[in-house]
Amino acid sequence: MKTLHVELGERRYPIHIGPGLLDRVELLAPHVQGREVMIVSNETVAPLYIDTLRRGVAGAARIDSVVLPDGEQYKTLEIMNRIFDALLRVRYSRRCVLVALGGGVIGDMAGFAAACYQRGVDFIQVPTTLLSQVDSSVGGKTGVNHPLGKNMIGAFHQPLCVLADTATLDTLPDRELSAGLAEVIKYGLICDLPFFRWLEQNVELLLARDGEALSYAIERCCRNKAEVVSADEREGGVRALLNLGHTFGHAIETGMGYGQWLHGEAVATGMCMAAAMSQGLGWLDDETVRRIERLITAARLPVAPPSQLSSERFLELMAVDKKVQDGRIRLILLHRLGSAVISDDYPQPVLQATIANARGRHG
Amino acid sequence: MKTLHVELGERRYPIHIGPGLLDRVELLAPHVQGREVMIVSNETVAPLYIDTLRRGVAGAARIDSVVLPDGEQYKTLEIMNRIFDALLRVRYSRRCVLVALGGGVIGDMAGFAAACYQRGVDFIQVPTTLLSQVDSSVGGKTGVNHPLGKNMIGAFHQPLCVLADTATLDTLPDRELSAGLAEVIKYGLICDLPFFRWLEQNVELLLARDGEALSYAIERCCRNKAEVVSADEREGGVRALLNLGHTFGHAIETGMGYGQWLHGEAVATGMCMAAAMSQGLGWLDDETVRRIERLITAARLPVAPPSQLSSERFLELMAVDKKVQDGRIRLILLHRLGSAVISDDYPQPVLQATIANARGRHG
Repeated sequence: MKTLHVELGERRYPIHIGPGLLDRVELLAPHVQGREVMIVSNETVAPLYIDTLRRGVAGAARIDSVVLPDGEQYKTLEIMNRIFDALLRVRYSRRCVLVALGGGVIGDMAGFAAACYQRGVDFIQVPTTLLSQVDSSVGGKTGVNHPLGKNMIGAFHQPLCVLADTATLDTLPDRELSAGLAEVIKYGLICDLPFFRWLEQNVELLLARDGEALSYAIERCCRNKAEVVSADEREGGVRALLNLGHTFGHAIETGMGYGQWLHGEAVATGMCMAAAMSQGLGWLDDETVRRIERLITAARLPVAPPSQLSSERFLELMAVDKKVQDGRIRLILLHRLGSAVISDDYPQPVLQATIANARGRHG
Repeated sequence: MKTLHVELGERRYPIHIGPGLLDRVELLAPHVQGREVMIVSNETVAPLYIDTLRRGVAGAARIDSVVLPDGEQYKTLEIMNRIFDALLRVRYSRRCVLVALGGGVIGDMAGFAAACYQRGVDFIQVPTTLLSQVDSSVGGKTGVNHPLGKNMIGAFHQPLCVLADTATLDTLPDRELSAGLAEVIKYGLICDLPFFRWLEQNVELLLARDGEALSYAIERCCRNKAEVVSADEREGGVRALLNLGHTFGHAIETGMGYGQWLHGEAVATGMCMAAAMSQGLGWLDDETVRRIERLITAARLPVAPPSQLSSERFLELMAVDKKVQDGRIRLILLHRLGSAVISDDYPQPVLQATIANARGRHG
């Protein structure tokens, strides 16, 4: 097991990474001993792991659970309300702890519910997908979607700890594994060129679920993320770079209907579009863009957006994003491979051409 | 006009109190100039004051509004979602400002929506009821109700400023004026004996809407509240004293169905019950309890709970409250007139007798 820390002063917390952590009482006891524990999970993950986790939180004064439907389309205020229903039915107090057992959707909703229940209670992230282990479980971004925009309603709320049990990846569907690789590749692109090169060499091992390779990748991503979050918890600056591909990606997710494209798939395509746009601005050469696309393709991820979304609609969807400022869409772009920048100072036609060209790839 | 401040370091903010402030551009411009402004109001208040307020925020880059139904029964996640709908329909960015124009329900919902929209945007409180001017608009408590418990879902989120236009009280129904007096009397009871005495002398003037008396009372309450909030923003200690009568009161509000009893009415009765319980513990004498009840009655507020709620049900409802800790209901009680204490260390029969006796007053 490896342990990293997100350095946030009083709210510093550990990320434990390794196989078989779910029932390691000594990792969970410091946070749950003698407290009310509500496990929040979904219909897919709960049958697989909830009993193991119950052993892990055995020191709790009381353990209950609420099981939500599985999928991005259920990441709504309405479904989140079921967590409040469950908490109030058993009259959990302000001292209770929510435990998110699942992927990014569960982590985001349980975390947001924890931020709001009685104006804020503690929570623990137990991510069971590659995507949530490398990215979404760390950093305290929580929230739900709105039909008009992804992650538009939420809070910053840091967990007490993150427990990334790599053994849970054994049961992850291939499509979800690939989706997780999108966020892994992201770290290579934005700030870690050596890691990008390592990924080029090892993507097949990751797809084959080689334990050592996966652990290495998860740890490296968490290390990168922890550093960025420690420096800029509320996304006043550098943290925004973690959104590479996300404004393009959110447009795809919202436009297609949540749950059609997986978040990682949309981000993968979004990163290709960001790379193409960076080329349009003269920052990347053609070979670098192709190299990025090759890695994304090797990870079995899409490089072009769905043909159903017209260019006009795509742009309209991008305009509803948290990164819009004074009417300008702020984009994360690549100044060079391994180095991202935030920019809202680009010629609008370059963005339009990027979208049109990406769509054109469907022939 | 008087101006007080809530001292919270970087988040320090002013409370302006006086007649005719709604369209004082110089008070609002520093907060809204060049920004997107969403006025959140209700069907009762909007027709009366929204146009005046629009002149006050004239320096905004854009002004929109969303008008919600009026009443505590509408303080729900579902109705709050309409604020998000409105914000996203016009694609408001993270730099937007929400302005709450109305009573406590509007302030709580608009504030909570501001806390969550894009993970947090700014907001301004423009309270138009006595209750919200003296209490709920100051201090950053925001939230909505759940069918199983009052204010159970929310956030701490401080406004940029509070604009208490005392002229808006001219249109306040008598019942709401009295409800506001409950929170006014609360400040006398918990920490300001001289003010309690002043209220005994001046309650008729307040009911007659004497401008000077109202302004004095509002300023005095805000001064008390600002001091408490500055010392304990997150209610780790002394701030809890502001909840005198509220745990009893919430039981009435939730038990009767939100909107049946006004919040202030329920708090008034709750304060009488807290006083009776303090007497049961030997802290107050009979005459003091009667004196409190006389003032509350003079303010045209109820001193006994509704007979519909059985003692068992009442206790059950009290057990769902944010102040419950380790299964014990923490109550705010009066150690003496003008001095409140938090206690969870009382004999349970005293609480049961308090509820039974209060119910018995219906004969």
